Amino acid sequence: MASSSSLTLSQAILSRSAIPRHGSAAPTAAGSVSIPSFSGLKPTTTTSFSTPTRRRTPTLTRLPITASAAVETLEKTTDTALIDKSVNTIRFLAIDAVEKANSGHPGLPMGCAPMGHILYDEVMRYNPKNPYWFNRDRFVLSAGHGCMLQYALLHLAGYDAVKEEDLKSFRQWGSRTPGHPENFETPGIEVTTGPLGQGVANAVGLALAEKHLAARFNKPDSEIVDHYTYVILGDGCQMEGISNEACSLAGHWGLGKLIAFYDDNHISIDGDTEIAFTEKADIRFEALGWHVIWVKNGNTGYDEIRAAIKEAKAVKDKPTLIKITTTIGFGSPNKANSYSVHGSALGAKEVEATRKNLGWPFEPFHVPDDVKKHWSRHVPAGADLEAEWNAKFAEYEKKYSEEAAELKSIITGELPAGWEKALPTYTPETPGDATRNLSQQNLNALAKVLPGLLGGSADLASSNMTLLKMFGDFQKNTAEERNVRFGVREHGMGAICNGIALHSPGFIPYCATFFVFTDYMRAAMRISALSEAGVIYVMTHDSIGLGEDGPTHQPIEHLASFRAMPNILMLRPADGNETAGSYKVAVLNRKRPSVLALSRQKLPNLAGTSIDGVSKGGYTISDNSSGNKPDVILIGTGSELEIAAKAADELRKEGKSVRVVSFVSWELFDEQSDEYKESVLPASVSARVSIEAGSTFGWQKIVGAKGKAIGIDRFGASAPAGKIYKEFGITAEAVIAAAKEVA
Amino acid sequence: MASSSSLTLSQAILSRSAIPRHGSAAPTAAGSVSIPSFSGLKPTTTTSFSTPTRRRTPTLTRLPITASAAVETLEKTTDTALIDKSVNTIRFLAIDAVEKANSGHPGLPMGCAPMGHILYDEVMRYNPKNPYWFNRDRFVLSAGHGCMLQYALLHLAGYDAVKEEDLKSFRQWGSRTPGHPENFETPGIEVTTGPLGQGVANAVGLALAEKHLAARFNKPDSEIVDHYTYVILGDGCQMEGISNEACSLAGHWGLGKLIAFYDDNHISIDGDTEIAFTEKADIRFEALGWHVIWVKNGNTGYDEIRAAIKEAKAVKDKPTLIKITTTIGFGSPNKANSYSVHGSALGAKEVEATRKNLGWPFEPFHVPDDVKKHWSRHVPAGADLEAEWNAKFAEYEKKYSEEAAELKSIITGELPAGWEKALPTYTPETPGDATRNLSQQNLNALAKVLPGLLGGSADLASSNMTLLKMFGDFQKNTAEERNVRFGVREHGMGAICNGIALHSPGFIPYCATFFVFTDYMRAAMRISALSEAGVIYVMTHDSIGLGEDGPTHQPIEHLASFRAMPNILMLRPADGNETAGSYKVAVLNRKRPSVLALSRQKLPNLAGTSIDGVSKGGYTISDNSSGNKPDVILIGTGSELEIAAKAADELRKEGKSVRVVSFVSWELFDEQSDEYKESVLPASVSARVSIEAGSTFGWQKIVGAKGKAIGIDRFGASAPAGKIYKEFGITAEAVIAAAKEVA
Repeated sequence: MASSSSLTLSQAILSRSAIPRHGSAAPTAAGSVSIPSFSGLKPTTTTSFSTPTRRRTPTLTRLPITASAAVETLEKTTDTALIDKSVNTIRFLAIDAVEKANSGHPGLPMGCAPMGHILYDEVMRYNPKNPYWFNRDRFVLSAGHGCMLQYALLHLAGYDAVKEEDLKSFRQWGSRTPGHPENFETPGIEVTTGPLGQGVANAVGLALAEKHLAARFNKPDSEIVDHYTYVILGDGCQMEGISNEACSLAGHWGLGKLIAFYDDNHISIDGDTEIAFTEKADIRFEALGWHVIWVKNGNTGYDEIRAAIKEAKAVKDKPTLIKITTTIGFGSPNKANSYSVHGSALGAKEVEATRKNLGWPFEPFHVPDDVKKHWSRHVPAGADLEAEWNAKFAEYEKKYSEEAAELKSIITGELPAGWEKALPTYTPETPGDATRNLSQQNLNALAKVLPGLLGGSADLASSNMTLLKMFGDFQKNTAEERNVRFGVREHGMGAICNGIALHSPGFIPYCATFFVFTDYMRAAMRISALSEAGVIYVMTHDSIGLGEDGPTHQPIEHLASFRAMPNILMLRPADGNETAGSYKVAVLNRKRPSVLALSRQKLPNLAGTSIDGVSKGGYTISDNSSGNKPDVILIGTGSELEIAAKAADELRKEGKSVRVVSFVSWELFDEQSDEYKESVLPASVSARVSIEAGSTFGWQKIVGAKGKAIGIDRFGASAPAGKIYKEFGITAEAVIAAAKEVA
Repeated sequence: MASSSSLTLSQAILSRSAIPRHGSAAPTAAGSVSIPSFSGLKPTTTTSFSTPTRRRTPTLTRLPITASAAVETLEKTTDTALIDKSVNTIRFLAIDAVEKANSGHPGLPMGCAPMGHILYDEVMRYNPKNPYWFNRDRFVLSAGHGCMLQYALLHLAGYDAVKEEDLKSFRQWGSRTPGHPENFETPGIEVTTGPLGQGVANAVGLALAEKHLAARFNKPDSEIVDHYTYVILGDGCQMEGISNEACSLAGHWGLGKLIAFYDDNHISIDGDTEIAFTEKADIRFEALGWHVIWVKNGNTGYDEIRAAIKEAKAVKDKPTLIKITTTIGFGSPNKANSYSVHGSALGAKEVEATRKNLGWPFEPFHVPDDVKKHWSRHVPAGADLEAEWNAKFAEYEKKYSEEAAELKSIITGELPAGWEKALPTYTPETPGDATRNLSQQNLNALAKVLPGLLGGSADLASSNMTLLKMFGDFQKNTAEERNVRFGVREHGMGAICNGIALHSPGFIPYCATFFVFTDYMRAAMRISALSEAGVIYVMTHDSIGLGEDGPTHQPIEHLASFRAMPNILMLRPADGNETAGSYKVAVLNRKRPSVLALSRQKLPNLAGTSIDGVSKGGYTISDNSSGNKPDVILIGTGSELEIAAKAADELRKEGKSVRVVSFVSWELFDEQSDEYKESVLPASVSARVSIEAGSTFGWQKIVGAKGKAIGIDRFGASAPAGKIYKEFGITAEAVIAAAKEVA
C-alpha cells in the first residue's frame, strides 16, 4: 500500500458517511475535515476535589486496585454551579425536543444527564469535527430510547450532525435525529441501538477491536491504539439474555478498557422493576468477571461519578460496571421515578413545573451562553487530539512501515490491491468437498491478505470449519490473535461482530454457527443490515442435508427469511468456485452483511460455475438450447444445483434443450440489468423448475405461475441425509418429472 | 362441563398423541391405558445411608434450610453394585445406539447416567403406561443432544415408546428415537430440546404451570396439584442468554419445585470450556435468587446426588441449581473428558475398550436381568400413583365441583362449551380502534371463559394491551393470578410459554412484545411450531404505522418470515371482527402456534369483515362484480385493508368492478378447497393488486406475474406514521394507479 499523509488517512475515514446508503431517502452530507491550530484540551479552571465516599454493595469482595502511572487524573474542571447548569441544559434539550415531537423518551436523559455531562465534557477524547477519527473514545447508548441524551451531548460538543435545527426536528422525516440512535444517519453515533441489550454487546465488540489492535500494533515506544469504550445500559438491557452473553465474554477476555454505566433507576415500562427483575445484577457481573462499583447518587454526585471512572480506569484486567442509581425523569415534580416519564412527552404543564422545579427560566432549546462557552473548547481540543495522533502515526509509519500499512488498511477500509487473487479456484476435476470445508479454504486464504479479517464460531469451530490455521486464539493475554471463541452465544456473537465492524471500516468480522441457529441471533443480524455493518455470517449445516440431528437442527424457512430482509445478502454457493465467489462478494460488500449458507455434506465441483457468476446472483451454468429458447429452465441453489445438473443431463439425453441456472443470491440477481435478467430467465420461457432443500416460499417470483418449485414446506426429520432427501422428494427424478409436467 | 370418571379423564389426556401431526409421515400410535392393580412403589430393599459430605463453593453463603415434614425421605433403594450395573446399562445403551447409528452424542449419557438413574429410579413419580398422567413429575433434558440418556431411562422404566427396537433404530427414518428429544414423536418426552438453553426455559414454564395450578386449585384438605420439574442442562445451556433470562424469572418467582442439574463437565464442542466460559455460574445463579449446591462427584457419588436432591426439596421458596461435576464420556479410557466423545460414535475399538474398562461383558443393547427386574416395579407403581391420584381427584370433584371442572378443562384440553360466544363482534358503526386495543377486549372476554388462558408481555403490557383486568399479577406469593410479568426477556418468555403450553393441553399461554422483537424470540417460536405448542403470540406495533420509534422498531420482513415457517399461523387482522376471528382461530389451534400482528394505530371497522371470514384465511369483503369476473381484485391485510377498501370505492366510482379481498392468513387460505380459492381469486382474473406495509417477498404467489404487490422492501424511518405511509407510497392513490396499470 502506498504511503499517505495522516490527513488523507482521516479523510478516507470520514468519507464513509458520504457513501450512499441503502434505500434511504437523503444521505447525510459529511462535514469537511478542518484541523484548527493548536489550542489545547486543558481545563480552564482546575480545582482538586475531595475523594468521595464510594458506597459498595456490602457483599462484594474488594479488588486490590493497583495504582498506575498511566491512569488519567480526573479533576474537577469547573465550578459545580456551571456543571449543574450544563446538566440541566442537557435535561431541557431532551425535554424540549420530546415535547416538540410529542414523541420520545425524556426520562432517561433527565436521569443520566450528570454521567453524560461528565463523560462528554470531562472524560472522553474525541474530535467533534471528525466523528470518524480513529483513536477516539467510543460511546454507546445501549438504552437507545434515551437518544436525546446523546443528541444533546453531541450538540453541546460541537458535532455538525446535531445543530439546533436537528434537535428541533427530532423524530421527523429526513432528520438526523431519529427516534433511536442510528450510526448511518448521524455521524457521532457509533452503532445503532434501541432494541435492548444490543448496544452493550456492540460495546464489547468495540472494546475487543481496541484490545486486538493495541496488542497487534502498539510498540514499546508507541501506543498508537489507545481508547476507551463507554456504554450506558438500563434495566431493560440487563434483563435481555444477549447482555449476559456478551458481558460474560467481556469478563472472560478481560476487556479492561470497557466501562459500562448501568443506569439503575428501578423503572421499566411496566412499572417498578420489582415486578420482574429482582436479581442482584451487581453480583452477577462480579460472577462474570467484572469489576463492579456502585455510585449511589447518580443524580447529583458528580464527584462520585468521577471517582468511579477513575477507579474503573485503574482496573486494567477487567471490564468495569458502574451501577449508578438515578431517578428516571429527575427534576419532574410529578412524573419523576415513574414509568409515565419513560416514553412520553411530559406535557406542557409538567414541562412548566419541571422548569420551575429546576430553576430553568429559558426558552425551549436554549443553551445558556456560559454553558455554550464552557463546551466550546472541545472543537479545538479535539482537533488537537487528532493532530497529535496524526503526528504520532506519522512517526509510527516511519519506524514500522509494514504494521502501519496493515493498520492503515483497517483504519481506512481500503482493501490491499489484488487481494482477490488469493481466492482459490476449482475445476470439475477437483475432488468434491462440503462447502463448509471450501469456506475454510477461503477464510484461510483471505486471512493472509486481509489485515482486518477476524472471527470465529459459537462453539462450533470444528463443525463450521472457521479456524484460521495461521493464527492462535484471541484471548485475554493473546489479544493479537484472530480466532475468536464465542462460546455458545450466538446472539452476543452477532452483536459483538457488529461492534467490531463499526469500529473501523477495514475490519471484516465473520462469525459462524449452524444456519438454523440464525434464529438465536436474528435481532443482531437485522441490525447488521440496518446499520451497514459488513459482517460475514458463515452458516453451515444449511439444510436437511445435515441428517440425523433432525428437525431442531434443519433449517427450512431460513433462506426465505433472509431473502425477505432488506440490505443483507443471502448467498448459497453450490461448490468451490461459488464459495470463493461468495466470499468475494461478502468482502466487497462492506456496508451490507452477507449470509453464506454452506453444506455439511460433500458436493462435486460443477462445470460452469464461476466466481464471476456469483457476482450476478443468478447465471447459466449449462445450456444446450439456442436462441435463448430452452424447452425448460432448471434452477437450483447450493447443494441442489448438482441435482438440477443431473436432471438436465437426463433430460438432454431425451432430446430436450435444457438450461441450468444457479441462483446463488436473489438480491444480486435483482440488481442486474433487465437485459441480463432476460438473458438468464427469458420471459417467453415459462417452463421453469426450481429445486432447493428449503421452503418454496417466494419461489413463485422466479418460476412463475406455470413453473414448479420443488422444496420443503414442512419441518425436517432425523435420519441419514440421503434418506431424507429421497423421502422428501428432493431428487433428480422429481425435477425430471416436474420438467416434463411444465415443458 | 359434564362430570366424567377419572379414567375418562386420563384417557382424554392420553389421546393427545393420537391426533395427526403436522405433515409428519407416520404418527406414533398411542399406547392404550392400562391401570394395573395396586402393587406399591416401596423399594424392595431399604437400608439407610450415612449423610454424605456436601461440598460447596466456599464463597456461597449458606441458606438456613427449614426442615419440613413434607420433604420426602430419600433412601438408598438397593445395593450399590446393582446401581452401578443399572448406571452402566444406561451408559452402554447410549454407547450402543450411537454406535449402531454411527451418529449421535455418547458423552453426556455416559457422564449423566448416575443422576439419570437416581432421578428416574428413585426420585421421580410417573406412570410409564400413561406418559400424560397429569400429576407426574416433569423431566427436561435441556442438553438435548444427550437424548440417548433419556431414551435409555424411558426404556428401563417401561415406557411403550422406547422398546429395544426403538433404541436400535436411533436416529433412523420413522423411528421414535430421533436425534434430539421431540415430544411429538416420543410419548414420555415433555418438550422438544436440542437448540441449547430452550429446555431449561421450558422447565421454568413447566414449574410456573405447576405453581400456578397448585396455588389456584389446591385446598387445605387436598393437594391435588403437586409435582416437581427436573432439568439437566449443560455448559452450552449456561452460555446461552435465554437461560439467564428464564432463570432470572425462576428466581424472581421463587419456583421452589424446580430442580436443575447443571452437568458441569468442562467440555464443549470446541474443547475445554476454559477457552470461552470462565464465569462463576454458581455465583451467578445465587445472584439470580437460586439455591445452589455443588456435587463434586457426579460420576459415582450416588449419596451426594441423593442428598443434594433432598436439600433442594427442602428449599421451598427458591429453585435449586445442583452443579454436578461429571466426566463427559465417563468410562471411555481414551476419550473421556475430551470433546471427541461429545458428538461422535466412540468407534468399535473404543467401545471395546470401554466395555473392558467398565467390566461390561454383555452384547450390545443388553439389559441384565437383575437390572430389568429392579426397574420392573415402575409399571405397577406408576399405575398405583395414577390410581391414587384419580381417587383423590374424584374426592376433590365431589367437594369442589367448580374448581374441578376448571382444572379438568386444563388437564384435558376440552374447551368449555360455547366459549366462542364470548368473542366480541363489531359493526362498521363501532368507533374505530387499534387492533392492539381490540386484542385486549378479546383477551379479557376470553379469560372469563377459558380457564387455561394466561400470559403477559415482555415489559410492554401497557403498549401491547395484554393485561387481564379481572386478574392480578402472577408473582411468588400470588401464583394463582394470570398476568405474567416477563420483564424485557422475549426469548425466555417464548420458551417459558412453550413449557406452559406443553404442561397440560388446556393451557392457552399468550405472550406479547412489539412484532419486530419476534427476532429476539424466533428460536423459541420455531420450537412452538415444531413441538405443537399452541402459544398465542400477541405482536403489536406491526408496521411502519408505529411511527417515530423508527426502523429499529418497524417490522418489514417479519410477516414473510413467519409465512415461510412451517406449522405456525400468521394472522394480521384488519379490524374488530377480524381480531375476534383471529383469536377464535388461535384458541382452536391447540397444536399450532398463532402469531397475531396488531396495529398501534387506530383502524376503522370495515363493512364485510367477519369472524368466519378469518377462519378461511382469505375472503371477499366487498365486490361489485358479477360472474366471478371483477375487473380487478384488490388484496390487503391488517391496517392496509382499509386502504384497499378506499381505493375500491374510488375505482367503483369510475365504473370499475372491483373485489376487495382480506388476506388475513395465508396458511388458512392455503388449506381451503380449490373451489373456494377459485371463488375468491379466480384464475381468469390476473389483474390483482396487493397492499401490505411490509416486504413484498412472497406476494407474487398471490398477485401472479401480471399483478402488482405494493409493499416496503427497505427499512423504515423515524417520523410520524402518516408521513411514512405517504413517503413510502402505501396509499390508496398508489393502489388506484397500480389497479389501472394491471386492469
